[in-house]
Amino acid sequence: MIVILKRGTQEREVEPIYKMLEECGIIAQEITGETTRMIGMAGDTSGISEDSILCFPCVERIMRVQEPYKLAGRKFHPEESVFDIGGQKIGGGHFAVMAGPCSVESEEQILAIAAAVKDSGASFLRGGAFKPRTSPYAFKGLGLEGLELLVMAKRKTGMPIVTEIMSSEYLDAFAELADVIQIGARNMQNFTLLSQVGALKKPVLLKRGLSSTIEELLMAAEYIMAGGSSEVILCERGIRTFETATRNTLDVSAVPVLKAKSHLPVVIDPSHATGYWYYVEPMALAATAAGADGLMLEVHNNPELALCDGAQSVTPQVFHRIMNKVGRVREAIASS
Amino acid sequence: MIVILKRGTQEREVEPIYKMLEECGIIAQEITGETTRMIGMAGDTSGISEDSILCFPCVERIMRVQEPYKLAGRKFHPEESVFDIGGQKIGGGHFAVMAGPCSVESEEQILAIAAAVKDSGASFLRGGAFKPRTSPYAFKGLGLEGLELLVMAKRKTGMPIVTEIMSSEYLDAFAELADVIQIGARNMQNFTLLSQVGALKKPVLLKRGLSSTIEELLMAAEYIMAGGSSEVILCERGIRTFETATRNTLDVSAVPVLKAKSHLPVVIDPSHATGYWYYVEPMALAATAAGADGLMLEVHNNPELALCDGAQSVTPQVFHRIMNKVGRVREAIASS
Amino acid sequence: MIVILKRGTQEREVEPIYKMLEECGIIAQEITGETTRMIGMAGDTSGISEDSILCFPCVERIMRVQEPYKLAGRKFHPEESVFDIGGQKIGGGHFAVMAGPCSVESEEQILAIAAAVKDSGASFLRGGAFKPRTSPYAFKGLGLEGLELLVMAKRKTGMPIVTEIMSSEYLDAFAELADVIQIGARNMQNFTLLSQVGALKKPVLLKRGLSSTIEELLMAAEYIMAGGSSEVILCERGIRTFETATRNTLDVSAVPVLKAKSHLPVVIDPSHATGYWYYVEPMALAATAAGADGLMLEVHNNPELALCDGAQSVTPQVFHRIMNKVGRVREAIASS
Amino acid sequence: MIVILKRGTQEREVEPIYKMLEECGIIAQEITGETTRMIGMAGDTSGISEDSILCFPCVERIMRVQEPYKLAGRKFHPEESVFDIGGQKIGGGHFAVMAGPCSVESEEQILAIAAAVKDSGASFLRGGAFKPRTSPYAFKGLGLEGLELLVMAKRKTGMPIVTEIMSSEYLDAFAELADVIQIGARNMQNFTLLSQVGALKKPVLLKRGLSSTIEELLMAAEYIMAGGSSEVILCERGIRTFETATRNTLDVSAVPVLKAKSHLPVVIDPSHATGYWYYVEPMALAATAAGADGLMLEVHNNPELALCDGAQSVTPQVFHRIMNKVGRVREAIASS
Repeated sequence: MIVILKRGTQEREVEPIYKMLEECGIIAQEITGETTRMIGMAGDTSGISEDSILCFPCVERIMRVQEPYKLAGRKFHPEESVFDIGGQKIGGGHFAVMAGPCSVESEEQILAIAAAVKDSGASFLRGGAFKPRTSPYAFKGLGLEGLELLVMAKRKTGMPIVTEIMSSEYLDAFAELADVIQIGARNMQNFTLLSQVGALKKPVLLKRGLSSTIEELLMAAEYIMAGGSSEVILCERGIRTFETATRNTLDVSAVPVLKAKSHLPVVIDPSHATGYWYYVEPMALAATAAGADGLMLEVHNNPELALCDGAQSVTPQVFHRIMNKVGRVREAIASS
Repeated sequence: MIVILKRGTQEREVEPIYKMLEECGIIAQEITGETTRMIGMAGDTSGISEDSILCFPCVERIMRVQEPYKLAGRKFHPEESVFDIGGQKIGGGHFAVMAGPCSVESEEQILAIAAAVKDSGASFLRGGAFKPRTSPYAFKGLGLEGLELLVMAKRKTGMPIVTEIMSSEYLDAFAELADVIQIGARNMQNFTLLSQVGALKKPVLLKRGLSSTIEELLMAAEYIMAGGSSEVILCERGIRTFETATRNTLDVSAVPVLKAKSHLPVVIDPSHATGYWYYVEPMALAATAAGADGLMLEVHNNPELALCDGAQSVTPQVFHRIMNKVGRVREAIASS
Repeated sequence: MIVILKRGTQEREVEPIYKMLEECGIIAQEITGETTRMIGMAGDTSGISEDSILCFPCVERIMRVQEPYKLAGRKFHPEESVFDIGGQKIGGGHFAVMAGPCSVESEEQILAIAAAVKDSGASFLRGGAFKPRTSPYAFKGLGLEGLELLVMAKRKTGMPIVTEIMSSEYLDAFAELADVIQIGARNMQNFTLLSQVGALKKPVLLKRGLSSTIEELLMAAEYIMAGGSSEVILCERGIRTFETATRNTLDVSAVPVLKAKSHLPVVIDPSHATGYWYYVEPMALAATAAGADGLMLEVHNNPELALCDGAQSVTPQVFHRIMNKVGRVREAIASS
Repeated sequence: MIVILKRGTQEREVEPIYKMLEECGIIAQEITGETTRMIGMAGDTSGISEDSILCFPCVERIMRVQEPYKLAGRKFHPEESVFDIGGQKIGGGHFAVMAGPCSVESEEQILAIAAAVKDSGASFLRGGAFKPRTSPYAFKGLGLEGLELLVMAKRKTGMPIVTEIMSSEYLDAFAELADVIQIGARNMQNFTLLSQVGALKKPVLLKRGLSSTIEELLMAAEYIMAGGSSEVILCERGIRTFETATRNTLDVSAVPVLKAKSHLPVVIDPSHATGYWYYVEPMALAATAAGADGLMLEVHNNPELALCDGAQSVTPQVFHRIMNKVGRVREAIASS
């Protein structure tokens, strides 16, 4: 941590800062130049509140040096993590595609889609039983019944299931039935839920909030990991910008950035990011080429009748084509 | 709703759209020009999913005409709402200041601050018992004990209390002890919590999410109102932009926009928005001049020792000066 | 400047950095802790390129400590600047309103509006002769003829004129005829134009770019001042965010931030920021309450026939009311 | 264009709107429902100013239906454009890589880099002679001398050159010496320069502004094309968002969006977008996989000594590896 002092600061103004640092057991070094005077600390400063230091009238600014995440970061865990979930691997060179409908609508629908995506090479089945909707008047999913239909599809196809939890009310059901518990973008900083889900010690797929920085995403992962889970998959699904041609702006560069800063697998969801099915294919390929560890794709056998997000769902035929190209792109970037 | 068709669309492609609209009981009119062909619907289209229409291959784009919120909107409720909460009025010309520490730290602290802000003219006491923190390792508030200390301060000063709920676990305690239940920015789209809090039928202070549009804020209010509460206070507390000189960018223009679109009272929180105590005064005055119905301000008797957000808290002395100026600005804008 | 080194950096990797610093005459101090190793420099580092240091493989990150602007900053010019332009003062307690139409359309129009705004207390006449338009097919202003009509209005009313320059082609005409040369938001980083206008040594009104940080705005002012002009007025006119309820988001907090970091006067343009005339009044009052040194307002005697930006122009009647309220707000915030 | 009227609008309030439309020769149709009343126009409405309509007090909102660009759009030019520039093709299946240093520094430097990038398969040489720099005190390029050094490199290698123009002062030199004239992001809405460069009727590379929408980029292209040039190459180089882990956020989805809306070739610049050389490779591959028509890459033989932007430049060795992978990714996405 670096503390920059205001021009013309008096010695007696700085003393209480040194006193506070000393009490916290921190060794500080001063750097003084013609125009600037700074206090540098190179030890573990996690015990000091930046905020308290900012309150001293002589402090102009503070700059943090260390990353605030430890469990999610690469610094103390340089190897990429590989997770084996229900026989499907992800991370450290293992690529996984999670596909399925936005929301589970019926037995017939979910079984048909599950069979189709498995045939094309998907390794996880995704599907929403509980749906976050902007309007209180919109379809909110089948709830527990939807969760049971997913389990039925899992039994038929063998694919582990990924599905979103929206409140702690259903923690037990998710602990029992889901293979990967998804935390949606809107709940990325629902800190209570993060801790509770972490305590289940199950694999978690954590979606980046629409306006969350990469550091905040890693801090949310840290919450889950501090709660007890060691298997967190990070998912970029578009951030909010001024551009309106796509629903959100898919931050593809989050892939190499997250891979550099963290050991956790990174998955991209181009369906929610773009909002239009015809942009899903190019963005799925882009994410793969950027080095993602997997994709999350919405597939619907009858998009125009979908109860939710039909416009961003691809048909099983298009999904099949995407899978073929994704495989070829992975080969293309593999060798140097 | 307006449906814009692609150039060169064939009649047989449009038919299924008209059929679907007919089934939904919607009367559609077509507008055809040299370069564009549109279908216009002026009735209640809340029953149709935009998404299903977007799936028809001949559809280029959809434009929504009606506002999706009814309970929160001005259209069906043209008069400004006035709420009387524990004897304190807000809205429709009544101005209310909610002041207090970021988090409740001790009996001594909360009683001293409560007395001070009351003396200067605050009408509500704010204080956090449960704190959302970006880091899992940071102080998270005193919890229920904090809630009880707030109640003690209320008994001494008579000020109703505003405090944030973070999870449904404590719904009963908040229903019993809080006068205004606050939903924080990070939970603005925690739809489960919105419905549950709405069902308590108590006054709610709803903070705008960091990247939520004004329409999304009103839809979140709609959730609470559809849940049962009729008293929702809207709070702007800064949005996330590219600018880093302030913690967030306070969207002061949200005040006149919200007042135009909704009948609910609008409160501004300049403390969280700017992140620095010395910007709180000018922004509190700006919000007042823009026509806000109230302010939410962090006040701490000892900012440098605050356990949370000390840098953005003003002292009781500064608060007193702000209150004086706020009163004068309100007079200045009152008469035409 | 602080250089943070990567974990596990070898001594031989750091040597070339020290060598480079030494060659630049910079005294560096090292701060070493358990997990972090940093090089701190407190002298004048304006001669080193951050970029060259970032190229050394052992460098993880660089943090700049000093502000990169000198002429525009408060550090070496602690007193607020006051400019006297054609008998009108602005800055350091002097408040100035610049009012007039978006574009000059005819002699009759500009003379009528000029007389009206002067009557209500405006001190500068604004009006566009050259207009930047998003579409190549839109009205682009009367050009030099417009400039001459402004001069005519100046002769009649005595008000100095503010008008936008769009290219270096007309530098001579602006040098001769304009009292304040405006650089528009879209040209804020047209560095050639900034230098050329600076060399005229005339007062300049510099608008903040739609996505420019406050630091970039001050660096653009620095360009003009390094070019020769000492009288730069900074103008915030809305930044681009995700919100679409207003055309742009007026960053009112830019007022206290700019006042803290710079000695130059700060003016707010709520007309372009909001895009709707009915939001202009509340935002003009907000800007005044936040401590702005002036306002720039679009006034049109016949908004629905305006050739440009009619929707954001207020009538002379509304302008008169705004001026009254602005005066009262200024009194309200004056005394402590 | 759709005009939505306010609730409770009287007939006499609407009449002047119909009158104005009639005068402009526009046939309007009214759509009336229980809660909404709209006026729809399907003909050519480019002659009406949205702004004038917004001034009528009974108008709530306007929605534009037609795209405002004609020359740059796909509607009237459904085939993808292919440009042949100095023997190098781009667009419509032809892929082109533009590589070279951020700025031309010396004869030795530019010749060495030109030879290296040609060897690896680049088809255009990029290099800055005039450099836009945020600070007035930074290196601004060699100017005309730099342009001549580029021409020398072109003579040696046969590669056509791409270089940025910053002001109209040097139009003649660029007309004579450059093969592709680059308009930088900061000048994307320097409308005077756009028209002047268009009038040269030479190929232009137009970079998207940091906060420009895709529609604004196409409108800027429209300016150049209306000026006379028919060969405009669009370049995405990162947009400004709240994320700070990369310098800007590369909007990879701009590739399929631009390809859908326009017939012009689309090129991606991952060097400026990310700001760090180690993110250039993954993002170059992502852009290729998304369907870009080309790449613009900064290559420097000695990045740590570069006078500008060294941190984002790759070495010739890394460039060679990128080119190999780019070629393989193009094959991977080619067949269905």
